[in-house]
Amino acid sequence: MITSSANAQMKYISLLQRKASAREQERAFVVEGVRLFSEVPRQLLLKTYVSQRFQDEEIGKYKELFDGVNYEVVTDRVFDSVCDTKTPQGVLAVVRMPETKTATKNREGLYLILDGIADPGNLGTIFRTAEAAGVTEILLSSDTVDLYNPKVVRSTMGSVFRMSHRVCRDLAKEIKEMEENGIRCYVTSLTQSENYTKVSYKGATAVVIGNEAHGVSQAVLDACREHIKIPMDGSIESLNAAIACAVVLFEAARQRR
Amino acid sequence: MITSSANAQMKYISLLQRKASAREQERAFVVEGVRLFSEVPRQLLLKTYVSQRFQDEEIGKYKELFDGVNYEVVTDRVFDSVCDTKTPQGVLAVVRMPETKTATKNREGLYLILDGIADPGNLGTIFRTAEAAGVTEILLSSDTVDLYNPKVVRSTMGSVFRMSHRVCRDLAKEIKEMEENGIRCYVTSLTQSENYTKVSYKGATAVVIGNEAHGVSQAVLDACREHIKIPMDGSIESLNAAIACAVVLFEAARQRR
Repeated sequence: MITSSANAQMKYISLLQRKASAREQERAFVVEGVRLFSEVPRQLLLKTYVSQRFQDEEIGKYKELFDGVNYEVVTDRVFDSVCDTKTPQGVLAVVRMPETKTATKNREGLYLILDGIADPGNLGTIFRTAEAAGVTEILLSSDTVDLYNPKVVRSTMGSVFRMSHRVCRDLAKEIKEMEENGIRCYVTSLTQSENYTKVSYKGATAVVIGNEAHGVSQAVLDACREHIKIPMDGSIESLNAAIACAVVLFEAARQRR
Repeated sequence: MITSSANAQMKYISLLQRKASAREQERAFVVEGVRLFSEVPRQLLLKTYVSQRFQDEEIGKYKELFDGVNYEVVTDRVFDSVCDTKTPQGVLAVVRMPETKTATKNREGLYLILDGIADPGNLGTIFRTAEAAGVTEILLSSDTVDLYNPKVVRSTMGSVFRMSHRVCRDLAKEIKEMEENGIRCYVTSLTQSENYTKVSYKGATAVVIGNEAHGVSQAVLDACREHIKIPMDGSIESLNAAIACAVVLFEAARQRR
């Protein structure tokens, strides 16, 4: 049993929770809670920890989930100290990052391109929404908030393990290549734009969503041939980024069905 | 200048920030930040406070906004102590709640009915999204999170002042009356449901969205004649409540345009 937060494993977990650079270097991140733990593909599971209370009172309820899993027990106080959630459930795992696949350039694919999403809750919700809308792959600009940030991982509700994704150093270049490969790239913009319901998302299509405050970068705007907008009533200047993303993706899903 | 957090006005602000019951009794709430302050209709403005730093360095930039506004100056430390935001901007106002209107029973209206939304960020985002989608009025069950909670008010981005809304004690009864008045009520549900894109939202229509974890209550489910669902790909069990709301409302807006 681990009884001290000075324990090397506990220090390692704390580091992974706090630092994107450590996660990137180790190609590993932390998952908390029964629900999310149950979504981890076994081949990605590096190490599992449970709190003493969880071992005494809860683990019996999850026989199947813990079948064949080696875990380490940690005293409640130390366990809670390395958790990011306010009310830890008593299960935590160090997980290997899923392999990032190269774009399949699927001629029928529906791609989502995220340019600088900054809010962890938004990024997680966007992953969950994209999976539901049938997105083939998500491309993220390198200044997008880290996908393996604890709050992002939680908000994805497990989509982080299922949704194909990769980080791109030069999103504008990537978009130009996609356009050359016959993938129509639609960017939400306020100038010279078409109503988002009046364009076609059939065939290979990408939807581009920008940062919450500043929108899409100029280079990305210039790279996209098709500019779309969501008509808005009232005195609303813009929609939340995850909401705008959902509205366009589900219109695409409706047309493609 | 107010220099102590023991000052009666500061205690009053703290109370309004923390307690829904105090807000309800006083029919008042607190608004923070320049952006949100600029959205407050003048007739609802009860009292304005600025921090000493804001008075010294910032207020000159907002001449028009503060024209004719009487405000009280508060030392930075005390000002920050009564704020709910982590990085206060230096402007805060006590605001009267907008009058809640009775349902207009508009034969062309688009209504949104919220049954037990619990997350403050979700409720605020839903208000903002509903305004953009052209919703006529929002009806809230009495167990929905308090609309005048500081985090909800912030997330509405000002929609709280513009979007007509009222709290209903008996939502199921209200829905039955709406159905009798020819307003079709669509509830998102998982059983015996129609694809949400295959129904008509033309004419008087209401969309019902339930609690994040438990969905819509049985009484409300029973009261609605029309059950709809959003088809989902992947292993997704449900969408975030604000996302589901946006997807259905913008499909309604598309059809009604």
